[in-house]
Amino acid sequence: MADKKKRRRPDSDSDSASQPFKNLLKPDEQILQILESFTSSLSSSSTSKPLTLADLALSTTCREVSDLSLSSVQSVIESLVLQLTHQILSGQGFSFTVPSRSSSNQLYVPELDRIVLKDKSTVRPFSHISSVRKTTITAKILSLVHQLCLKNIHVTKRDLFYTDVKLFQDQIQSDAVLDDVSCMLGCTRSSLNVIAAEKGVVVGRLIFSDNGDMIDCTKMGMGGKAIPPNIDRVGDMQSDALFILLVEKDAAYIRLAEDRFYNRFPCIIVTAKGQPDVATRLFLRKMKMELKLPVLALVDSDPYGLKILSVYGCGSKNMSYDSANLTTPDIKWLGIRPSDLDKYKIPEQCRLPMTEQDIKTGKDLLEEDFVKKNPGWVEELNLMVKTKQKAEIQALSSFGFQYLSEVYLPLKLQQQDWL
Amino acid sequence: MADKKKRRRPDSDSDSASQPFKNLLKPDEQILQILESFTSSLSSSSTSKPLTLADLALSTTCREVSDLSLSSVQSVIESLVLQLTHQILSGQGFSFTVPSRSSSNQLYVPELDRIVLKDKSTVRPFSHISSVRKTTITAKILSLVHQLCLKNIHVTKRDLFYTDVKLFQDQIQSDAVLDDVSCMLGCTRSSLNVIAAEKGVVVGRLIFSDNGDMIDCTKMGMGGKAIPPNIDRVGDMQSDALFILLVEKDAAYIRLAEDRFYNRFPCIIVTAKGQPDVATRLFLRKMKMELKLPVLALVDSDPYGLKILSVYGCGSKNMSYDSANLTTPDIKWLGIRPSDLDKYKIPEQCRLPMTEQDIKTGKDLLEEDFVKKNPGWVEELNLMVKTKQKAEIQALSSFGFQYLSEVYLPLKLQQQDWL
Repeated sequence: MADKKKRRRPDSDSDSASQPFKNLLKPDEQILQILESFTSSLSSSSTSKPLTLADLALSTTCREVSDLSLSSVQSVIESLVLQLTHQILSGQGFSFTVPSRSSSNQLYVPELDRIVLKDKSTVRPFSHISSVRKTTITAKILSLVHQLCLKNIHVTKRDLFYTDVKLFQDQIQSDAVLDDVSCMLGCTRSSLNVIAAEKGVVVGRLIFSDNGDMIDCTKMGMGGKAIPPNIDRVGDMQSDALFILLVEKDAAYIRLAEDRFYNRFPCIIVTAKGQPDVATRLFLRKMKMELKLPVLALVDSDPYGLKILSVYGCGSKNMSYDSANLTTPDIKWLGIRPSDLDKYKIPEQCRLPMTEQDIKTGKDLLEEDFVKKNPGWVEELNLMVKTKQKAEIQALSSFGFQYLSEVYLPLKLQQQDWL
Repeated sequence: MADKKKRRRPDSDSDSASQPFKNLLKPDEQILQILESFTSSLSSSSTSKPLTLADLALSTTCREVSDLSLSSVQSVIESLVLQLTHQILSGQGFSFTVPSRSSSNQLYVPELDRIVLKDKSTVRPFSHISSVRKTTITAKILSLVHQLCLKNIHVTKRDLFYTDVKLFQDQIQSDAVLDDVSCMLGCTRSSLNVIAAEKGVVVGRLIFSDNGDMIDCTKMGMGGKAIPPNIDRVGDMQSDALFILLVEKDAAYIRLAEDRFYNRFPCIIVTAKGQPDVATRLFLRKMKMELKLPVLALVDSDPYGLKILSVYGCGSKNMSYDSANLTTPDIKWLGIRPSDLDKYKIPEQCRLPMTEQDIKTGKDLLEEDFVKKNPGWVEELNLMVKTKQKAEIQALSSFGFQYLSEVYLPLKLQQQDWL
């Protein structure tokens, strides 16, 4: 039988001395009221339909993909093949027209706050020595995806590679063409039923269906629910949470899951354990869209923390063609922010000096449009680069292991201290 | 609503040509009978108490730790501190006696089929320039663990490090002393309530409690249940499975989870997604011990696949003091075995040439006692080193994405083809 001994309540007399700012905390009811009014203001303002590329009269044409059903993917492939046959029969030869995914074809759209793909394309002819292999690979991937549509199963990118090692030579080649095929067909990569290994977990006030099974994330113990690799089998989301807490790393996630932080402040806690994977990004977006909840991010106070936040928020360049589906708009930077280091008196020995590379990454971020758009972020990032100091979320453990869940986060919520 | 379109049954006419050996498969009922008699023979033979170190009259004394309750850990620490105080007061100075974890102090015990720690110890005096820091770190870790006992919470190794960065300097130092403290106190690391981030998932015919919540792993969709980081809160295991399928990597795991392989052949599917972490090792052992099921391992056909199998089975040198709790006895090597490459006609282009390093690792494994003990393994490993070929589980995708779940595994089970 599992050990279910009650946790002792922290002794407030002995703790307040070593836990700075604990005395500032209001009763939970008052913090909850603050959160409720914030969340309801947000969900009423977001009833207006979110902006899409089509709403903007951009001078450049942009390319976006959308979620297609398996049968639509199948018929798009079949039309494409028919069109290719006509092309060959009419003497024009066999070639694919493939959207370019090079960085010169990328555009940050401030109104949408994400990166999109412009409409440049390249022709990939079969009858040319430089492109005959890539054209063959493209045809093979199209045929494999067509098989997946017929069988209605999901496979990993690794599985695809192994169907013809001699042709692909290297998984990088089949992966790249897979993204090309998504762009060509105008559908998201998840519509192709090709999935990446998932590593994210979710816990807290969320009920959803995974492949037909109903999952109650308040009853997932400390381990939480592994985020499904295939978003198309995820549905029926319900929640009484007031916000989504997006956590960079698992150490902080474990602390919050064990303390059942989501019962004190109704929320959904989600982490990809480091770099955001596609499954977690899709899952976060789906929660945000269906539940209309604010997303608050808890990341390390270093350039990579902000970079991770930006991948969730604005997307990565590699998959910009799919940014509409992969990005979660309006993520708030809760902490650990550079200004928190002094504000919360993080001891000097728990701060780490930034390396040359860190400082360069920080300065590069200052040049990015999605940072510039938010003056508060620019200010914080300037402070980081100036002080040359970084700190992990775990640095809060210097005030006691539960300082994060018992003082820092409640105070942040009470003060609505996010940017 | 999630897409729940029925999967088409594979068309047996068109598939049998491209799916070798499919015609050898007997009806599922017959395979299930084979499995049932195997599992029941195993569980009846294992009713005799498993061997322990104490049962063996070894010439060397060995050191092992055991699971202790939090209150026991607390009182062991308090007795130790009392003893240290006496030692200081009696003029003998302040020093810890710490079990040595160097490789010269390791011993493979064939009767137990795992690595154990011999009884050499070193003295760590405070009043010596070379050990004053390490002694201070040891005292600090003891005091932190004592705090965890009082609060009854779990923290990560990273949290421990951050409580005093100035003293520890580097997480490697606090991690190493944490293992020392486990040995000194004679308890497992999980008894100290210090956990490592979990990455394993489990799905299939298992019901268990995680921190008081009942989890039904047949209702965990495709994502599965994340394995809890703290084994002491795991309990109440129930299952109608006939075996546990231990899978090295997530691509194979995803295939089996989506195909709900556990419904065709009642089993529990578990993976640590690569290198075995402590949480998954503890979870696997607990399943094996409580449910008395055979464990069949599906790993890559390369030296690392066998190495991973050996860590689950016999333990790692670094944590040999805890091998009794971390290892799962009698894991069977199901596949992909070097002899399978020819037997299942894996195409040449899906096999990879072994590197010099691979071959060296393979030869080193041949010298290991736990390999030598099993003549079948020696033969397979010799074949691997001789042919200089390796292959991943995913190589089976060359016969179709579902060849693994529809032909290879059922046939392996039918033929009881494990070592």
